[in-house]
Amino acid sequence: MSEDKISMNHGAGGEVMANLIASTVLDNITKKSVNGGISLDALDDGATIPIDDYEIVFTTDGHTIDPLFFPGGDIGRISACGTINDVSVMGARPLAISNAIIMQEGFPIDDLDRIMRSLNEACEEVDVAVITGDTKVMPNDKLEGIVMVTTGIGIAKKGEIVCDSTLEVGDKIIITGSLGDHGMSLMSFREGFGFETDLKSDVAPMWNIIKESLEIGGITAMKDPTRGGFANAINEMASKSGVGVVLEQDAIPIRPEVHAVSEMLGIDPFEVANEGKVVMGVKADKARDVLKVIKNEKYGEDAAIIGEVVEGEYVIVKTPIGGERILEAPIADPVPRVC
Amino acid sequence: MSEDKISMNHGAGGEVMANLIASTVLDNITKKSVNGGISLDALDDGATIPIDDYEIVFTTDGHTIDPLFFPGGDIGRISACGTINDVSVMGARPLAISNAIIMQEGFPIDDLDRIMRSLNEACEEVDVAVITGDTKVMPNDKLEGIVMVTTGIGIAKKGEIVCDSTLEVGDKIIITGSLGDHGMSLMSFREGFGFETDLKSDVAPMWNIIKESLEIGGITAMKDPTRGGFANAINEMASKSGVGVVLEQDAIPIRPEVHAVSEMLGIDPFEVANEGKVVMGVKADKARDVLKVIKNEKYGEDAAIIGEVVEGEYVIVKTPIGGERILEAPIADPVPRVC
Repeated sequence: MSEDKISMNHGAGGEVMANLIASTVLDNITKKSVNGGISLDALDDGATIPIDDYEIVFTTDGHTIDPLFFPGGDIGRISACGTINDVSVMGARPLAISNAIIMQEGFPIDDLDRIMRSLNEACEEVDVAVITGDTKVMPNDKLEGIVMVTTGIGIAKKGEIVCDSTLEVGDKIIITGSLGDHGMSLMSFREGFGFETDLKSDVAPMWNIIKESLEIGGITAMKDPTRGGFANAINEMASKSGVGVVLEQDAIPIRPEVHAVSEMLGIDPFEVANEGKVVMGVKADKARDVLKVIKNEKYGEDAAIIGEVVEGEYVIVKTPIGGERILEAPIADPVPRVC
Repeated sequence: MSEDKISMNHGAGGEVMANLIASTVLDNITKKSVNGGISLDALDDGATIPIDDYEIVFTTDGHTIDPLFFPGGDIGRISACGTINDVSVMGARPLAISNAIIMQEGFPIDDLDRIMRSLNEACEEVDVAVITGDTKVMPNDKLEGIVMVTTGIGIAKKGEIVCDSTLEVGDKIIITGSLGDHGMSLMSFREGFGFETDLKSDVAPMWNIIKESLEIGGITAMKDPTRGGFANAINEMASKSGVGVVLEQDAIPIRPEVHAVSEMLGIDPFEVANEGKVVMGVKADKARDVLKVIKNEKYGEDAAIIGEVVEGEYVIVKTPIGGERILEAPIADPVPRVC
């Protein structure tokens, strides 16, 4: 028996959460994979179920964002995109999502309507269906606002699944756009800064970018840098793959407004969530071609090759003046939290 | 613009909820099915995605039960069983579930551990894997306790999906066990009655019962009588199928303890949730054989043939003294609510 309680950090996507999941979830579940597919133990963006010539990808995400409506999006758009992107970064075509809504008594029906329209718009962009759902209402002393859980199902041909653990030495690292937009815009919006109109969330579905990239080929690993930000994503990819990564700081796209908020709040833009970005490892000889197709896609204009995979065990950022720093995975969320 | 707010009845599984879903969800979603499978519009227990020779079944359920631990089960067991059963009543073998946990800051880690062990036990009974999940923590002024959303994926051969809308005149109606156990036990437990030890929830995975029944054959329609109880399930099956149903009250299994609580609270046991029961329509010439295999399975010993499908549009209950009453779907939840 332990008297330990859940803290906010247990949900923050860092080490504290990983330890909680290992002890309360992974250790308690007997059967963690089907037909030899990617299992719960992999803690990848999703799991897979091999069926004949296909692999079905399956992923789920709970959305508890505050505020519900923010510059650039809302909980509806983020619920659709988060799950669509988790399927897509596995290299699978997203087919459908389910949508479970849990809301408080007294929640405005117009807000629900707006949220569902927004969820639908994101699904329309990448031709994803919403095929099943559930609706629950909780008393207003038990829940404030609305929580949405979307689960996604996608399909890939056997052997075409892309993991987050398969970077190879020599690969180039591509990021599909500027980092930190979602997290920093939410923080500045919540803190009530005057410049929030310049900054908005990047929340967007990534399937079209990923589909074009997969057609070029050479994609070795992918991950979407959501909770824990880019710092978490690139470290997870590197450590799971047993490699190091060297990044050129100058090459990493960050908007000036994000820099400004970042300095004001004292928060590293690498550690906050992105909701419309993909980190890719790409074979060196394909990297230019992949970059080109990404830059031609909506949401891909700021894509860049930002570094490469090396032997080693650290993610290192080289500064313009010749310095080097180790980019570590955040232990927990920066404060103020954003999602 | 409307000033309307969500009420508890919007989540109660009755007409009020159906109207809300129609206007805020169905009307806003563009693409509601994949490859011609069962769509969101069907509002069945799940949807399907046809792939080559298979149909993939996909279903989701949010669990907001209070209290979290109750006689006969807990939120972990109910989260597993609810989703496993929704897949199973479509005639599909449940393969895997995802599990999204949303909990308040301060939630006891031992409780989380107990809930996950319980979820796992239910999955083990029917060899279902837990292959992916998500964990979120909300501040304790925004959420009380824990909410779990489980999504299930199952598989059937093409053409073997069973709907809730395909009852045929002449079919026998089978119920796999006694009605009202879950709802009445929760109510009596919450109201603090002294006899709660006699009564416990029926929460259980139904796949083994359903698998055996499908092997006999002749199953025309299935549904699990959860929210809104048996009254809702049988009315939904009848109205979607365009038929009437005549039930023999004497044949419907109800435990004496459930009768007792029911009379004390003034609540119809037909209108409260069951979490380990299936309502089946079965071809008359197969009904005895199906009943026999169900009665041999765990959780099936009290199964009974309780009536038959007729031409018409009502669900009628014939009383032992020759009377008849129309069994209507509940408009909303009975009070006190149970889930």
